[in-house]
Amino acid sequence: MLKPFLRVLTLEEARDLLRKFSHLDTERVSILDALHRVLAEPVKAREDVPAFDRSTMDGFAVRSVDTFGATETSPALFHVAGEVPMGEVHNLKLKKGETVRIWTGGALPSGADAVAMVEHAEELDQNTIEILKAVAPFDNVVRKGEDIRARETLLTVSHRLRPQDLGLLAAMGARAVQVYNKPSVAIISSGDEVVPVEDEPPPGCVRDVNRYTLGAMIQESHATPVWIGIAPDRLEALSALIEKALGTADVVVISGGSSMGSRDHVMEAIRAHKDSEILLHGVSVSPGKPLILARVASRPVIGLPGHPVSAMVCFEQFVVPILRRLEGEDVVNPYLRKTFQAFLSRNVASREGRTDFVRVRLQHKDGRIVALPVPGKSGMISAMVRADGFIRIEADCEGLYKGDQVAVHLFADWIEESLEKKHLSGHEVAGGGSGDLFAASEQEKLSRS
Amino acid sequence: MLKPFLRVLTLEEARDLLRKFSHLDTERVSILDALHRVLAEPVKAREDVPAFDRSTMDGFAVRSVDTFGATETSPALFHVAGEVPMGEVHNLKLKKGETVRIWTGGALPSGADAVAMVEHAEELDQNTIEILKAVAPFDNVVRKGEDIRARETLLTVSHRLRPQDLGLLAAMGARAVQVYNKPSVAIISSGDEVVPVEDEPPPGCVRDVNRYTLGAMIQESHATPVWIGIAPDRLEALSALIEKALGTADVVVISGGSSMGSRDHVMEAIRAHKDSEILLHGVSVSPGKPLILARVASRPVIGLPGHPVSAMVCFEQFVVPILRRLEGEDVVNPYLRKTFQAFLSRNVASREGRTDFVRVRLQHKDGRIVALPVPGKSGMISAMVRADGFIRIEADCEGLYKGDQVAVHLFADWIEESLEKKHLSGHEVAGGGSGDLFAASEQEKLSRS
Repeated sequence: MLKPFLRVLTLEEARDLLRKFSHLDTERVSILDALHRVLAEPVKAREDVPAFDRSTMDGFAVRSVDTFGATETSPALFHVAGEVPMGEVHNLKLKKGETVRIWTGGALPSGADAVAMVEHAEELDQNTIEILKAVAPFDNVVRKGEDIRARETLLTVSHRLRPQDLGLLAAMGARAVQVYNKPSVAIISSGDEVVPVEDEPPPGCVRDVNRYTLGAMIQESHATPVWIGIAPDRLEALSALIEKALGTADVVVISGGSSMGSRDHVMEAIRAHKDSEILLHGVSVSPGKPLILARVASRPVIGLPGHPVSAMVCFEQFVVPILRRLEGEDVVNPYLRKTFQAFLSRNVASREGRTDFVRVRLQHKDGRIVALPVPGKSGMISAMVRADGFIRIEADCEGLYKGDQVAVHLFADWIEESLEKKHLSGHEVAGGGSGDLFAASEQEKLSRS
Repeated sequence: MLKPFLRVLTLEEARDLLRKFSHLDTERVSILDALHRVLAEPVKAREDVPAFDRSTMDGFAVRSVDTFGATETSPALFHVAGEVPMGEVHNLKLKKGETVRIWTGGALPSGADAVAMVEHAEELDQNTIEILKAVAPFDNVVRKGEDIRARETLLTVSHRLRPQDLGLLAAMGARAVQVYNKPSVAIISSGDEVVPVEDEPPPGCVRDVNRYTLGAMIQESHATPVWIGIAPDRLEALSALIEKALGTADVVVISGGSSMGSRDHVMEAIRAHKDSEILLHGVSVSPGKPLILARVASRPVIGLPGHPVSAMVCFEQFVVPILRRLEGEDVVNPYLRKTFQAFLSRNVASREGRTDFVRVRLQHKDGRIVALPVPGKSGMISAMVRADGFIRIEADCEGLYKGDQVAVHLFADWIEESLEKKHLSGHEVAGGGSGDLFAASEQEKLSRS
């Protein structure tokens, strides 16, 4: 029943095609603007951090050897020779039986190799203390270079920068880093029935949804959406918008017009371009089969299904990996939504040979978190709204059983409190053999037999 | 050993205090700018979506009753009375035995109640087709109001908007929504030893790290960082910066200066303010104990430990919930990092009565994903850089065992490919009783016995 040009690929075959696209250019940005950017150069330590032996406690800098054997009943006596001011180095060299007051973060004076905590010291007078507990060498000290060693490679090319990575760069005095450019992604909605959100749709028409869902997903991918417009079902009009998009963005995403219908101008418009290659038309995922991937003037052009749910699933599965590839990540498929473990509320069938993405809602039930499949056609945006995430059923799997433990790929960084209460305590999972998970495994065996 | 003012609270007691802060004001924003904003009004459907019975397939609109009994050997004959143009309504009322061509997304003509797929139709001539398979009423149709029913409440107050929610708003023609203001968060670093990143630190000094880690975490919380400056260890200087911060931001975060040391000017500066209340000084979490939470001029002022790791852990555990509270979420602790299930590589001890946050690195080992605790003092930023996330050990737990399944709270939305490969196939988890998790449960029992 398929037209000859439509060779349906598996999800994995489709993903391999992404290697055909190159990384974008790079630029230098301040570490204040570098969150979530991808490194285009390795980061090596320029110097030791800390640059000096540093106290991690408020207390007394000592030669540890002088405290050996000290206890509450037999304390060690010290002469307090001064205090290390914060941000300065004391010029004293500690002699036997000498100590200086020191604060958290202070630099140990020469000769000192440990800090006795203030809680373990007894002040006899202004200049004399007893230490009630022995300290070992380097107790309560971060040694020079212990955090970061000069010339050590700390971060590699293709690493996406997290808050702590920026802190690391700051610690070494690296005020700017070389990163890959952020991809810009042009969005075209297509279809004679699609009207802008501000219009009252005439009978038979619907408002544009994909501009907003895809635009937001582009933002969530740390890329920049560029709105091009709504293309009617005419080849010239669509071609003109694609041309405009290629002139302004690194990637072009067109929703609608990729089904088998006679309105299939997306394929024609791509083919008509002199420097174009269709890489893929059709992939065995559900929802989302009629996907188009092409390279036009070296840029990825992706035709997504028009149905909002299909468009979102395909965007996540194909466009996000392309964006990450362009942004300098080595791997073709580095993207992973964080997951939440839950138990399936009912059997879910799946066709072999096709990867299924099933939308689910999470619910707290009988002390467990249960994933309920959300019914709804792929044209229904409400099905996505009612869902908390999706589960993935592999191509070689015929379905899942009620009670199976599933990894729910969450749509957002947060979930409802009723669930969170249960879950935030990693404890319940971590707590041992009597925890939920293992009970569930028993339950699951029962529900199958 | 603790000074009297420092009553150490548990994590849960500390979190209860957050109810003392009110939601911020609200504003109206375009749905193009509303991603991750929190609704300040419920969203009700204004109209049915779709507004008409809509085809989900390319095919032929029919009266389903006319197809009943149709099979490949005994097809039903139809007269093709025309075609539904996309974005229009056909004015024909279908009579018995009549059909019109229709495309995905097209409006069913009057009288039609189903669509026969083009794959199940045989064209005899321009005006005659055979339908080879019966369709039931509403097959391949999204009915008027099936996606969204007019007056239905779709999203509630305090809901944080995801891409699909924006699509839903667009579908109904809602171009703007009322949302809570984004919190702005002032950052002050404190300590005589702290120098700006652009300076070469003199002996005994270190560069400011927390400005960058906290600034990035504020961005990740969808809030706006406002840099105030580095405060030296002098009460007047710190008070002046806090005053400036209160004049420009909704929340003030001060790192450093919250330990028990004599430099504890943060408490003094807060107390000196005429409209201030100390809510908390000290919480039983590790790292991070010397936390300060105050209300000054109705705003939250938080004193975080100066150590980069402690500051980050405390920020996540206390400041993020405050930000979400201010931004209109009902619950006090709605925040949850998404988690990744892994198995602990070694025993980890924990002190009872204290909630421990243990940094871990994920590694693929013997076909399982293992969480390795990352050694490193809380002053070491590199310990955060080497970690992929943390596990949480509850206050009532004395520790975890090697082989325990733990929920790793990930630092980022992505993890390394080597792990992802294994994991992206939710299948391995979902696949049933022989999967990794259940095997692990066995393994765990062994490793304990």
